[in-house]
Amino acid sequence: MSQKNRRVKPQLLGGFRDYVPEIMISRQRIIDDIRCTFERFGFTPLDTPCLERSSVLGTDQDEFKMEVYRFMAGDQDISLRFDLTVPLSRVIAAYPEIPKPFKRYQFGNVWRKERPQAGRFREFAQFDADIVGSSSILADTEVIVLMYETLRSLGLDNFLIRFNNRKILNGLPVVCDFPSEKINDVLRILDKLEKIGIEDVFQELRQISDLSDKSVTKIEEFLQINGDDEKLLARLKVFFAGVEIAEEGISECNQIIKNLNDLNVDSSFRKFDLSIARGLGYYTGPVFETTLTDLPEIGSVFSGGRYDELVMRFTGEKIPSVGASVGVDRLIAALERLGKIEHRNSTSRVLLTIIDEKFSSNIQSLAKELRSAGINTEIYLGDSLGVKNQLIYAAKRDIPFVVFWGEEENKAGKIKLKDMTRRTEELLTRDGLLAKFLQV
Amino acid sequence: MSQKNRRVKPQLLGGFRDYVPEIMISRQRIIDDIRCTFERFGFTPLDTPCLERSSVLGTDQDEFKMEVYRFMAGDQDISLRFDLTVPLSRVIAAYPEIPKPFKRYQFGNVWRKERPQAGRFREFAQFDADIVGSSSILADTEVIVLMYETLRSLGLDNFLIRFNNRKILNGLPVVCDFPSEKINDVLRILDKLEKIGIEDVFQELRQISDLSDKSVTKIEEFLQINGDDEKLLARLKVFFAGVEIAEEGISECNQIIKNLNDLNVDSSFRKFDLSIARGLGYYTGPVFETTLTDLPEIGSVFSGGRYDELVMRFTGEKIPSVGASVGVDRLIAALERLGKIEHRNSTSRVLLTIIDEKFSSNIQSLAKELRSAGINTEIYLGDSLGVKNQLIYAAKRDIPFVVFWGEEENKAGKIKLKDMTRRTEELLTRDGLLAKFLQV
Repeated sequence: MSQKNRRVKPQLLGGFRDYVPEIMISRQRIIDDIRCTFERFGFTPLDTPCLERSSVLGTDQDEFKMEVYRFMAGDQDISLRFDLTVPLSRVIAAYPEIPKPFKRYQFGNVWRKERPQAGRFREFAQFDADIVGSSSILADTEVIVLMYETLRSLGLDNFLIRFNNRKILNGLPVVCDFPSEKINDVLRILDKLEKIGIEDVFQELRQISDLSDKSVTKIEEFLQINGDDEKLLARLKVFFAGVEIAEEGISECNQIIKNLNDLNVDSSFRKFDLSIARGLGYYTGPVFETTLTDLPEIGSVFSGGRYDELVMRFTGEKIPSVGASVGVDRLIAALERLGKIEHRNSTSRVLLTIIDEKFSSNIQSLAKELRSAGINTEIYLGDSLGVKNQLIYAAKRDIPFVVFWGEEENKAGKIKLKDMTRRTEELLTRDGLLAKFLQV
Repeated sequence: MSQKNRRVKPQLLGGFRDYVPEIMISRQRIIDDIRCTFERFGFTPLDTPCLERSSVLGTDQDEFKMEVYRFMAGDQDISLRFDLTVPLSRVIAAYPEIPKPFKRYQFGNVWRKERPQAGRFREFAQFDADIVGSSSILADTEVIVLMYETLRSLGLDNFLIRFNNRKILNGLPVVCDFPSEKINDVLRILDKLEKIGIEDVFQELRQISDLSDKSVTKIEEFLQINGDDEKLLARLKVFFAGVEIAEEGISECNQIIKNLNDLNVDSSFRKFDLSIARGLGYYTGPVFETTLTDLPEIGSVFSGGRYDELVMRFTGEKIPSVGASVGVDRLIAALERLGKIEHRNSTSRVLLTIIDEKFSSNIQSLAKELRSAGINTEIYLGDSLGVKNQLIYAAKRDIPFVVFWGEEENKAGKIKLKDMTRRTEELLTRDGLLAKFLQV
């Protein structure tokens, strides 16, 4: 092969990234923690392919606006999934035998061919939890509590889960007297509140055609409703009096708040917030999103809501569902900026050096013994056997302990253990060494 | 939206599959077990994108024969990765600062657009472990021991890791007197030994052009060398006397065997086997593969070898590397056929029923308490609150315990716990319930 003649640049595609061990070890721990919390709540794992028929994802429809990876393979029109919710709805339709309510979690990559920006990638991992087949408001509460517990378990102590209800917002056309087909335009603008401020929101609202000045004034009045949960609920009841859909939404919010109070979910971590609309068209009830108080600019790290109509595309029937999705990689980027990511290059607890090849079979059998005892153990496999080289290797890889077993140690019937953090050394018997690791 | 009018079939692409919870729970456990073993040996995690430049994967080259998913996105020529080894070699070239030897593991999907067959999919997961930057034979030994320990930890007790050395095979052209550029044709045929039998191998060898009858006879003689490890090594030394490359290979096998003996790796699980060639062109030293003794027809579930030249495509320099890859989904299919997969629909330990909504806040706070204690707890979220319905739900989801807290229990100041396996019930205090779960 003439490989040398055409040397290839080891280059990634734009908008894609590697996770080298220094980041990946922490990323893996975070993923495990999330999984553990999700299972604690009774969610069960599901995995679906990364590639789906474009017709199943709806990416072949004119009204599908998101940029996705879509290509033909033979006569098959294939898309890379852009979320985990549409594949879930396919699964629900395809396996009617799955008992409901179906509480599933799924972790996996999704792809969106948007212009890459700082902190935004074209391939990113999501971790979703959904409850399918339950219209109970307890299910919505569970999702909020899950969001709270998940972020707490990751050591975050400064975040705000904000929730609202689409049913309340869907009452706006009646009360504010505008055509109901304008509601999505209005919500899209409300969604920008945090980014552009209330004055610009008013400005943009005024630019919607078919929206009278009177309507805009009434929406402004709505946005200025405030107060603690109790006052907010009371004022909303007055504002939407007689509008059935909104009253239903208010009552659901009331119930969620009551549940969260019963569960002592610290009120400083949650807020009933009328400005939360969630852009996506498919939400039909409670909606949630979560910002990190110290990093509001990165947007929501954990969001979701109730969507009762998504499975209809396949079955023609409504299935009441509610869920939320963690943007794992955005969350990790945030944890990194908050200094909550530990940078480690290895998960090994001990490096067994080879300073004299004569003892390499002793070293191997010691490795076997330590590993059997559950201790992550590495044998030095580099080509230059100098002590200094091996210590540099251990230091670079953040391995906290180093073992030496050479002529000298052998004569003494002992093994030398170096603590890389404390910079101490001690001579131990083989049993003593094992005991030391089991007790640390 | 006119969604109702164009109902979509919830259909997978051919050659792709879902992992519903019943399989996924076990699959996840297996993946975790493998990860745990890999970390025990000091391997650290890496993650790379599923999409790469076609030039990086080499899928844009005429000599690349495998069927892959390749497509254009704008002016970018993109391929879905077909293995985890080529991306690893890109990482090695792109991050020279990573300390070496670099022991990395990676789990992820790969895609091959082959015709789907029973048990073979176009998307499948691999779990790879590689040691990059070590020419030590200890590294090769470690990979074999890793393979052994990984499969043992999964409860497999009937498998055979067979190994050989490409250097020995590379001595064949000299001893058997045929042009060295024919070696790959010869090895491709040797690789089929298990499938087609020795007579057909001889037959096919005779059909290679430029291979004299004398050469074929000599190769036949090679294939008939047998005996236990010691005899095999002695006979090979005679057969390849004076052929330096083969002698190097024999000495490496000798060293590996010595190491495995020192480590008491049960000899019934491993075999030095001259017929193992590993089809792939890139191996340069020891090669390994693993068959399950009870299911030889599914082929190798864990294979690999030494490849010293893979990074050269990028850097122009050799980097000695050795590794192996578990075909996770093939292994799971095998475990399933061997009855070693537990089918469970849930990881929840207890279902808290809602038989009277009056007590739903008590139930929620009990859920909170159990979850805080690390017990996977589910609240029944279905819409029909009949006791029977909730028990059927628990049974379908394989949840072993069910809790009732209604008027009756409340009056008694107790909670009712039903053991679904033993079909027993008992009344417990709240503390008693918690204690019960913590002790089970």
